[in-house]
This record gives sequence, structure tokens and C-alpha cells, in this order.
Amino acid sequence: MTSAPSLTLHHYPFHPASRAARLALGEARLAFSETIVKPWEADCPLSRLSPNGMPPVVEVHERGQTLVLVELDAILGWLEDRAPEPFLLPADPAGRAEVRRLVAFFERRFTDEVDGVLLHERMEKALMRLGPPDAKQLRAGRETLREHIALLEVLAGERDWLAGRRMSAADLVCAAHLSVLDYFGEVPWKQAPALKEWYSKIKSRPTLRPLLSDRFPGVMPSAHYTDLDF
Amino acid sequence: MTSAPSLTLHHYPFHPASRAARLALGEARLAFSETIVKPWEADCPLSRLSPNGMPPVVEVHERGQTLVLVELDAILGWLEDRAPEPFLLPADPAGRAEVRRLVAFFERRFTDEVDGVLLHERMEKALMRLGPPDAKQLRAGRETLREHIALLEVLAGERDWLAGRRMSAADLVCAAHLSVLDYFGEVPWKQAPALKEWYSKIKSRPTLRPLLSDRFPGVMPSAHYTDLDF
Repeated sequence: MTSAPSLTLHHYPFHPASRAARLALGEARLAFSETIVKPWEADCPLSRLSPNGMPPVVEVHERGQTLVLVELDAILGWLEDRAPEPFLLPADPAGRAEVRRLVAFFERRFTDEVDGVLLHERMEKALMRLGPPDAKQLRAGRETLREHIALLEVLAGERDWLAGRRMSAADLVCAAHLSVLDYFGEVPWKQAPALKEWYSKIKSRPTLRPLLSDRFPGVMPSAHYTDLDF
Repeated sequence: MTSAPSLTLHHYPFHPASRAARLALGEARLAFSETIVKPWEADCPLSRLSPNGMPPVVEVHERGQTLVLVELDAILGWLEDRAPEPFLLPADPAGRAEVRRLVAFFERRFTDEVDGVLLHERMEKALMRLGPPDAKQLRAGRETLREHIALLEVLAGERDWLAGRRMSAADLVCAAHLSVLDYFGEVPWKQAPALKEWYSKIKSRPTLRPLLSDRFPGVMPSAHYTDLDF
């Protein structure tokens, strides 16, 4: 056995990809220290570690060497590579393809179409002092979210976990995105009973608990945000 | 040895992620048939195969089973999984992290900030009949492209290939994006002599040749688009 590496996660607590990295490190049962970064501030120390200046970034110190993992894909890939058996990707080709499809969907399309609108209006504008949310943008973002939730509801209804029988990176990435939206009360759970059941299941995992303690300045979480039996 | 799978690539020739999939299949020396899809048309047959309706999608028929690979990540991952030794990812953890960082950079940030502006103005507007390019947007997109090219120039100057000593997925994905921009004459090669040398090297690979025969309706390629010693 090799000794455990020393890990530091640089993340922003309400950034979905950062949350996915926290969840994945937690599921891997790797201890890590954390620094919270604010990439929109000019002196954010991440710019020294990452060319794009964005979290999540993991520094790995192991056997006298430092490895810097920039981008969620590099973090998930490193965890998978070092796992003795399939970890957040299933073993079969179809399952692996489905997990990769869903992770890419969340990290690209969902990020652009939902987070980039709803979280921009509700969160980034407050952080960057860009003024109040725009009602038209909120409506558009909520409409797109409803469409994506309807597709996720089908998956949650057919499968134990989003991509199949085992929990996978797709579940962590989905939980990362939905949990931030849920803090702001933006997830239409009533529309999606199977997805709600899935979320209740993943929410009860010890790795998700720390996320439920995060507090956004000036905004209380939605009434059910921390409720495991919501 | 297993028999070769029967593959069909559904792609759009001027879509960077589609080009990256073509290049990766070519480098894997897997024969494949092609269908060209136009995802902006209402009756695009891809919507039957892919929930997001976007190329690239690869159908794999092997041993009586069909596997559908949706999203570039699923295609690259499948190729890597079935390769007998590291193929488009290097073997060492630092190299793998760097390739994953660069692929994610192109597929997210570069796609949003450069393709989403410059290719939208020069290509998508023509395809979707959205009117002429907007000069202000073109200027903004070109400015962002110059910033990214400056970072890539540093990498190309320090390394044999973009992510290190071996050609990797990072090179294919970068070549996919730049080759589309280059068709439209948008790559400021004079600013980046080391990157130009790198591009000349990858352009001479047999896998890239088919891309140089692609023609966009109504737009001739830039003078040096097909020139291997440009």
C-alpha cells in the first residue's frame, strides 16, 4: 500500500463543479484540506495554479511531488485512475458511455443554459454587484430547467441511480448542480417525484452533508434545503 | 483478437467536437462510415440517438450489440478504454491531468468564448439565415482568440506536443477547433510561430487530410487552409 497523498481542494462552495469535486473526494474517502476561492476577485490566488483561474483545483502532494489537477475532468479522472477498481465509472462500456454523456451534459449544456442564467441572476449578480435579478431571464432559466428536469425525471424513474444500477459520477455532478439551485429554491421538485426520491437518497450520504451547511451571504436556504426527508 | 467493430460517426464537418471525434477515430485506425447531420434542422435524425440532438455521436455495432456514444467525452473515453495501451492519454498522472485540463478548456471555455462568438458570426448565422456577421462581435471574438492563442503559443514553444512529449487528445481537440477557425481565416498564425509549427506537424498526419477537403457552402477556405507547408 502507498501512503495517503496530502490533498488541498480549492473551491467555491456554491460553484457546481466545485461541489462535484468535493463530493468525489468525499466518496473516495480521501482526507483533504480546503481553501475557499473567489475567482471573480482580482487577487484570487487560484490564478497562480490554474491558467483559467477557475475552481475546482486540487493540489496533490505525494512522495515529494506536487500534482495540480485543474478542471473537474482532471480531478474525476485522477480519482478513477488511482482507484483499485471502477469507482465513479461503471465497468461496462455502455455504463461508462452513459456516465460520460451525463457528466458532459451537466458540465456543458446544463451549466450554460441553466446555471449560466438562473445562478447568474440569483448568485453571481449579488457577488459581483451587478444589480437585481432580471425577471425575464429568471423566467427563461426556469423554463429551461423544467425541460431538463423532465428528462432527468425519466432517468430517475427507470434506474436506481441516474446512469444505472450503481452510483456514479453522473449522480455526483447532478447533485452538485441541483443542490446549488435547491439552496435558492429553484428546483421544481413537485414536477419530478422520482428525481426527488433520488435526491433524497443521495442527500443522505455523509459526503453531501458538508454542502448542506454552506450559507450564501444574505440568502437563507430554501425551507427543505437541509431536510433529508423533504 | 476480437473482430473489428462496425462504426458509424454522425457528425457535422465544421463542428469542432465532431472534427475531434473524426480525428480520434482516425488515429485509432478504426474504419467508420459517416453520416453528416445538420442539428439545426428540425428533422435531424440525431434526435433519435442523442437526447441533446448534437453531434458527434458514434454508433458501435459489435458482437450483435449496439452501443451509442453521445458526446465527445464518451467517444474519447471509449477509444481509450479499449486501447491495449495508453492511446490519447499519456501514462503518467501529470500528463493525464494536463491532457484532461486542455480538452476541458477547449470543449468549454474556448467553445463558449471563441467558437460561440466567431463561428456563430461567420458560420451559424449563414447556416441558420440569421443575417450578416456583427462587426462588434467579430472584434470581440478575435480579441479573445488572440488571448487564448498567446497561451497556446507558450505551450507549443515549450513542448513537442501541446500537453507533453506525445501526441494526445489535447492536440486533436485543439487541431479540431483551430482548423475550423483556420478555414475562415481567423487564426492569427503570425502571432504564434511555435503554434504554427505544431499545426503544420499535425496537419500533415493522414487523419487530418479528410478535414482539409471539407467545403463550407459559399465560403472558400483561407489561402493556406490545405497547404501543409503554410
